Amino acid sequence: MEMFLGIDMGGTLIKLAIVDGKADVVEDASVYTDINAAPKTVIKNIANIIKNFKNYNKVKSIGVGIAGDVDYKKGVVRFSPNLPKWKNIYLKKELEKLTGKTVYADNDANTASIGAFWLDIKNKADNVICVTLGTGVGGGIIINKKLYRGSNGTAGEIGHITVEAKGRKCNCGNSGCSETYIGVKHIVKEAVDILKTKKSKYIMKLADNNIKNITPKLLSQAALKGDVVAKQVWNNVGEKLGILLASLINIFNPDSIVLCGGISNAGNLLIAPAKKEIKARAFKTSADNCKIVISKYTGKLGVVGAAMLVKN
Amino acid sequence: MEMFLGIDMGGTLIKLAIVDGKADVVEDASVYTDINAAPKTVIKNIANIIKNFKNYNKVKSIGVGIAGDVDYKKGVVRFSPNLPKWKNIYLKKELEKLTGKTVYADNDANTASIGAFWLDIKNKADNVICVTLGTGVGGGIIINKKLYRGSNGTAGEIGHITVEAKGRKCNCGNSGCSETYIGVKHIVKEAVDILKTKKSKYIMKLADNNIKNITPKLLSQAALKGDVVAKQVWNNVGEKLGILLASLINIFNPDSIVLCGGISNAGNLLIAPAKKEIKARAFKTSADNCKIVISKYTGKLGVVGAAMLVKN
Repeated sequence: MEMFLGIDMGGTLIKLAIVDGKADVVEDASVYTDINAAPKTVIKNIANIIKNFKNYNKVKSIGVGIAGDVDYKKGVVRFSPNLPKWKNIYLKKELEKLTGKTVYADNDANTASIGAFWLDIKNKADNVICVTLGTGVGGGIIINKKLYRGSNGTAGEIGHITVEAKGRKCNCGNSGCSETYIGVKHIVKEAVDILKTKKSKYIMKLADNNIKNITPKLLSQAALKGDVVAKQVWNNVGEKLGILLASLINIFNPDSIVLCGGISNAGNLLIAPAKKEIKARAFKTSADNCKIVISKYTGKLGVVGAAMLVKN
Repeated sequence: MEMFLGIDMGGTLIKLAIVDGKADVVEDASVYTDINAAPKTVIKNIANIIKNFKNYNKVKSIGVGIAGDVDYKKGVVRFSPNLPKWKNIYLKKELEKLTGKTVYADNDANTASIGAFWLDIKNKADNVICVTLGTGVGGGIIINKKLYRGSNGTAGEIGHITVEAKGRKCNCGNSGCSETYIGVKHIVKEAVDILKTKKSKYIMKLADNNIKNITPKLLSQAALKGDVVAKQVWNNVGEKLGILLASLINIFNPDSIVLCGGISNAGNLLIAPAKKEIKARAFKTSADNCKIVISKYTGKLGVVGAAMLVKN
């Protein structure tokens, strides 16, 4: 049986896995990332680890996902925010020299989207949008079962669709990007803003009376206990997410949208108001057709998607 | 040489053309549309006309574009706003019976986009977004040289991307769609609104002192003569267009965006403020890569795109 090896290079952990042709994990491992080590040394160590996998000989190709600016055509890591020593590293070339196998490399938003397509969708749809909700809001566009990268490899910046023409200033330079309403720090800011006029003993208790301790996770916890402020935060955030999703549905008429990343853990708190907004805003045929799915595999998407880069 | 025949079924004219493999028009004709005739009769008449083309025998396939709801897979016209008698018409089947050639049918937004890809882009890019600016704001998405239709054939509704979360009510049911800022009647409304506080003798003269006579064409004329109000209208509209285009650039990272439809005739009045907005809002790599093109072939896009449906 043909197998594929995936490597997810995180700032804390390097995850490794061998998957079969259906993207089911056959064997996996993880090691801590040494962010101070020379990239060449890290690549050598990875080569040694993967050669110890029992199924290594069956592996047809290797894929690597890494945060940052990756030239996927050349397999060069131009820059990675998590790994400051990785600048213009010829990852593909180095790892191919050490393994003799074909190597692919891409950024982690792309590998996560491919992972969601295989794990959550099981390769059973043609057109899927993956929305990663975290510090930033990223995405991946799967068209005809393949990742769409655009003309320079920078497509899929769906966190930077304008949803308010004169809205909040975004890090990207634009104003009113959806990221400025549903990114982690803006969710927290939403809570802090509401707390200026409404009190919540429960949130403040969870936060040890320090608003700096408020996190999306804490807000989920509070909302599930019925806290009015926390519920309002998720309603507002879900509404903004729904506006974004409605636009994506009108543009892409996809089979599914998969939500992944830490914020997607808010589950129904986020999805219920988003769905309401989709119903009010998107074209009916397209909205009815589009399943909104919360990924069940957030921790595995990167490594599995990296393995499946070969099909993209 | 292989040739392809295109038919553009408009509410006033039916345009017909034979094109070569490069989409250059070899032969063409047009006839008035009889909107009261039975669709079967119209189809028969069309078959008779095209058989008289000198190059008819070289035609490999026929494509038809028509406004409305078209099932392109089956070649059925479910509904056409311009041709009220056309309800659930098996256009493909009927025309194939009469000609013995393979027939394709699609809606006119799709055929116009394919036309722009061949005529304006000359098939020389992979990823192109076509934006049709008229009464409505429509679009077409060309990915890897082929029209992307989505899962139900309803993709490309780029006039219905939300650009103001709590913006103007749109016919589609949503609020703040880009169409509600750059569609024809909203352009006129923008002028009427500004005229409430600012006077323009020049516009009122062109409009015979009746604001009901204001059209986008009139506003172009006035702006080109330096009229301050008209210039402000185009600045505001161009700004909103730029917000939409910046989002499209961030999503698709396309090689080109082609603007077509009547409003695109405003040319630089519209494009200059739009480009300013793109520069301020879109990711630099993607924005630098993307050419903004005004179609030079608005009247021919539909018929040529219909002929090239065979490649989509």
